[in-house]
Amino acid sequence: MIVGIFGIGRIGKVHAENITRYFPDIHIKAIADPFMSEESVNFCKQINVPVITNDCNVILNDKEIDTVLICSSTDTHSSLLIDSANAGKNIFCEKPIDYDLDKIKAALNAAQKNKITLQIGFCRRFDHNHKSVHDLVQAGKIGTPHIIKISSRDPSPPPISYVKVSGGIFYDMMIHDFDMARFLANDEVEEVYTSASVLVDKAIGEAGDVDTAVVTLKFKSGTIAVIDNSRQAVYGYDQRVEVFGSKGCAINGNDTSSTAQVWGEHETVTDTIIKGMWDRYRGAFIAEIEAFCDAVKNKTEPKATGVDGLYSVLIAAAATKSFKEKRVVKLSEIVY
Amino acid sequence: MIVGIFGIGRIGKVHAENITRYFPDIHIKAIADPFMSEESVNFCKQINVPVITNDCNVILNDKEIDTVLICSSTDTHSSLLIDSANAGKNIFCEKPIDYDLDKIKAALNAAQKNKITLQIGFCRRFDHNHKSVHDLVQAGKIGTPHIIKISSRDPSPPPISYVKVSGGIFYDMMIHDFDMARFLANDEVEEVYTSASVLVDKAIGEAGDVDTAVVTLKFKSGTIAVIDNSRQAVYGYDQRVEVFGSKGCAINGNDTSSTAQVWGEHETVTDTIIKGMWDRYRGAFIAEIEAFCDAVKNKTEPKATGVDGLYSVLIAAAATKSFKEKRVVKLSEIVY
Amino acid sequence: MIVGIFGIGRIGKVHAENITRYFPDIHIKAIADPFMSEESVNFCKQINVPVITNDCNVILNDKEIDTVLICSSTDTHSSLLIDSANAGKNIFCEKPIDYDLDKIKAALNAAQKNKITLQIGFCRRFDHNHKSVHDLVQAGKIGTPHIIKISSRDPSPPPISYVKVSGGIFYDMMIHDFDMARFLANDEVEEVYTSASVLVDKAIGEAGDVDTAVVTLKFKSGTIAVIDNSRQAVYGYDQRVEVFGSKGCAINGNDTSSTAQVWGEHETVTDTIIKGMWDRYRGAFIAEIEAFCDAVKNKTEPKATGVDGLYSVLIAAAATKSFKEKRVVKLSEIVY
Amino acid sequence: MIVGIFGIGRIGKVHAENITRYFPDIHIKAIADPFMSEESVNFCKQINVPVITNDCNVILNDKEIDTVLICSSTDTHSSLLIDSANAGKNIFCEKPIDYDLDKIKAALNAAQKNKITLQIGFCRRFDHNHKSVHDLVQAGKIGTPHIIKISSRDPSPPPISYVKVSGGIFYDMMIHDFDMARFLANDEVEEVYTSASVLVDKAIGEAGDVDTAVVTLKFKSGTIAVIDNSRQAVYGYDQRVEVFGSKGCAINGNDTSSTAQVWGEHETVTDTIIKGMWDRYRGAFIAEIEAFCDAVKNKTEPKATGVDGLYSVLIAAAATKSFKEKRVVKLSEIVY
Repeated sequence: MIVGIFGIGRIGKVHAENITRYFPDIHIKAIADPFMSEESVNFCKQINVPVITNDCNVILNDKEIDTVLICSSTDTHSSLLIDSANAGKNIFCEKPIDYDLDKIKAALNAAQKNKITLQIGFCRRFDHNHKSVHDLVQAGKIGTPHIIKISSRDPSPPPISYVKVSGGIFYDMMIHDFDMARFLANDEVEEVYTSASVLVDKAIGEAGDVDTAVVTLKFKSGTIAVIDNSRQAVYGYDQRVEVFGSKGCAINGNDTSSTAQVWGEHETVTDTIIKGMWDRYRGAFIAEIEAFCDAVKNKTEPKATGVDGLYSVLIAAAATKSFKEKRVVKLSEIVY
Repeated sequence: MIVGIFGIGRIGKVHAENITRYFPDIHIKAIADPFMSEESVNFCKQINVPVITNDCNVILNDKEIDTVLICSSTDTHSSLLIDSANAGKNIFCEKPIDYDLDKIKAALNAAQKNKITLQIGFCRRFDHNHKSVHDLVQAGKIGTPHIIKISSRDPSPPPISYVKVSGGIFYDMMIHDFDMARFLANDEVEEVYTSASVLVDKAIGEAGDVDTAVVTLKFKSGTIAVIDNSRQAVYGYDQRVEVFGSKGCAINGNDTSSTAQVWGEHETVTDTIIKGMWDRYRGAFIAEIEAFCDAVKNKTEPKATGVDGLYSVLIAAAATKSFKEKRVVKLSEIVY
Repeated sequence: MIVGIFGIGRIGKVHAENITRYFPDIHIKAIADPFMSEESVNFCKQINVPVITNDCNVILNDKEIDTVLICSSTDTHSSLLIDSANAGKNIFCEKPIDYDLDKIKAALNAAQKNKITLQIGFCRRFDHNHKSVHDLVQAGKIGTPHIIKISSRDPSPPPISYVKVSGGIFYDMMIHDFDMARFLANDEVEEVYTSASVLVDKAIGEAGDVDTAVVTLKFKSGTIAVIDNSRQAVYGYDQRVEVFGSKGCAINGNDTSSTAQVWGEHETVTDTIIKGMWDRYRGAFIAEIEAFCDAVKNKTEPKATGVDGLYSVLIAAAATKSFKEKRVVKLSEIVY
Repeated sequence: MIVGIFGIGRIGKVHAENITRYFPDIHIKAIADPFMSEESVNFCKQINVPVITNDCNVILNDKEIDTVLICSSTDTHSSLLIDSANAGKNIFCEKPIDYDLDKIKAALNAAQKNKITLQIGFCRRFDHNHKSVHDLVQAGKIGTPHIIKISSRDPSPPPISYVKVSGGIFYDMMIHDFDMARFLANDEVEEVYTSASVLVDKAIGEAGDVDTAVVTLKFKSGTIAVIDNSRQAVYGYDQRVEVFGSKGCAINGNDTSSTAQVWGEHETVTDTIIKGMWDRYRGAFIAEIEAFCDAVKNKTEPKATGVDGLYSVLIAAAATKSFKEKRVVKLSEIVY
């Protein structure tokens, strides 16, 4: 597999580094970023990337490159996706494909028309803890799902400048959880209701967003999922899921840095949970690339498809609408 | 304290037995139940109750009896409460006071007018696990509450005959959780949204009720609580709460029968959670009586007041209305 | 069952109270204690014991009393046991029967000759956590036991005055663990090695005892057990067992007061373990009486026999000898 | 840092791979192995090692190579260590240095004389779980250590052919735990007592070894450590330590593959512990190289010194002697 990477920000570097370390069969031939910094150039050199460029066309026009990773800013995803698909390249695209439903549709059409493999970067589907719960559900251990609970809380809020352009908590943060809910329920959402507040930082409210949100999803089967998000969990990056069903309950907890504890006179103290996203999902970032390679090689359906990318945005749109209109919103109301 | 007990069904027996065992200072002088069975008479004799009667007036008219426990069927609560209050007796009344808001109001007025102590049987406020979380929150360990999560699932559904007269899952089962949410939030509810399904047993749906429900409560402060109920958790009586706030998260888990586990070749097996309500809240039933005695003796406000009893029913009414009308309901819409 | 109790100190009161509360079929007719205090008399009156006396013969001579509980000081156990057995009464005797092996032999002979039921107060065999591990082992869940680990640590040391007359840590404290090791191994000890130190309080050393001890037991089958004792675990009454075998490992942990925990910014804090022996083994004290009643009624072998009482003392003797002679001691060296 | 590696078996490959992945500042210039296989040559090529040779002298004579990793078979450790030290190279040497105390002494003398940095491969000192307990102890969280417990059990026994040449369980397997005990106690051992059995496989006994062993160590301070080893824990690679002291207890548990669990009707099932040594100590292998680099760069004392290497072998000798002579052995009896 000969790979080109669009965008060499944080997530681009993570994928490039993981590929260099763990995937000896993948050759990163080119990395393109219109805003390539000196530090990024050095990074690319250190991992022996032959072609380092500001120009995305270098990758698009390179016939040898059969696969691309789209790790650039969200507003460039759909056009790069369409161009890459038209150039016949397999595509791993970071989420979200776009916030605009028409652009998503165009991107999915291009992927389908060109019969390339498209996987969306819903890394959490590949996380050891979440995947275990998913697999236990799929193995029938809990029977039919009745209630799904997802807690997803960031250690600290992003800068207000970012909040303003983020698309809001439902597009920016909870989108992962919408995908997780669909992944765990193995079903499609019908109704969405949002209850949300500004409790962490007033400035987030002034920027037109909320920082604390609980969204209830009703699936076609009647399964109910409830997701809670907070922009600030001081104790760490809180990532838990639970699927309750007719035969039992599958549930996970947070990872900790160690299993050590101290039994003291007045309290028992255990290690805190892992604080950073990059640490928490370190294994998931590797596993999603491995799964993508498998899908490309075996020409099988990826485990996080373009349609998954579309649906998470549809639900984000419904959740936003529900919040604004203070009412339950049917997914069918979101037209595209 | 000289006590009379109205109603000697399951909960009446639990209180009578606990008082006999653990409260040597309380003398149960009389137990009245219009449907007193031979088995119940024997029970009363065994614990040396002097007066065993079908006639509630025997208790109401006995000047020596200064305190009553109302453990009869729900439809008799409010009138017994009013009569007992008017007779100047302190009252421990099982929840709910009534489903009719006017009757509740009348009962609370009678209690207030007669300046007697009235405690409602919200036993969970006194449970070791839930009280610990509450006390940690009150001690400021988690800062300001932002999100509250309550899971409350019964091991198995009641008979359909009972479902039909139960008032529905929100009045019958989730009422405890509405009270728990207020207890943990230390705040009042403004908005209620219900998402509910029939997933356990179609017969429950045919009886006009649901068996799986998720209710979102928004408090005045902006705190959001989410409660999930199921009529059937095959693994036991699942009772968990979580309060997430600005400085951390207080959370509890289920009690198990033992701490034993087996590390086997293919799996690690731990003990299941406690299956029955009577076992799970055994200590809470004792602790609530102890707290009631303290409130009576010290003339302090009980830890579960008549107003708490009222609010839980108000929220149940709003949750029911939200379910029926498929929309968010403000608590202020519930007129009484 | 009509019962007499010898000795109304702490453990005598626990049994008397439990019988009154939980065993309506048992009638405590008499309690005898040569050093009966006013407070003890009041206690006996409160639980409605008809005969309260300083004279043990009152119980021994009462034909109606078919069963006795020997809860007096250790030095009186064997003679009361012999007299009660000769009077044809079934006997529950607190551990140890005696420290003198000849006296134990005489007592066991008397019990056997009179064909009465004799159960020794090894309450830990009836503890929910330890019994669960035992039952899992008996059920074959871990195959053949290879290694047994027992941690048993008191929250704080007894007064030095008590240490001086206690017979030493191996007779006074670890005797419970010797019995537990035999109970879990279902085998007999061949070799004993003791390593011990004075680390908690020098005064304990000056009194001729140790406060920290690790004893290794080798069983006939080759199974190795290791017991550690400390007179002071500041975090509570630490009681854990582990049985490792050919098919897995059965292990338990300490009970805590609640399942509540706080996830804070710098640490996760969980509830401490139960600090007091009386709380920790509350259920075990009830369960051992229940098992004793069953053995009496069904004329089955008790779950903690006189022979168990003997062997625990034999091992204590060997452990003491090993400590003094700084060498491994065979149990066969302990002659009686 | 320019590095040469002696020996490219399993552990040599692990270090070479980790250095390539995680230590961009370290250049592996040469790998020497007298029994270099074609597969190993390919491995070396893949990670771009310039010099691949059968001849250890190539490394010893290369002035540019300032640092060596000795990963060859144990019988070659001491002579390679001496030659490398005499060549002025810093040395990371896998444990044990040797089984012969004179050879160890000679090796340590060479290291000292040449003032090079020598670190021994006691990787467990760098494990996240064990290091956490160690650091908590060093931070004073548990006061003075009184009792140390170490459980160390392999998932399955090595081939009998290996058992015969392994030096026995105390040199081959428990040596890690002897080092861990010293690491946690921060003290020196005075007395050693071994109780051991053949319970896993008779063939191990026929090969002159044991498969189940419990060793008690008494330290100078009076602290008592107890280590249990088994060649076969069917549930995985069981690695736990506990340090009990005057102010509390620091303890860890095993890592699991995920935090997922299933609450089923009859049992709660959690994920099994990690089964393989290479997975379990993956992070420790990286961390020990990082620490070694720091020690070399900063000319500080390594965290696992040659003296640590010597003492672990001394204790292994004493444990072996105790087992053979069925008596407690003082470490001072082991002459070298």
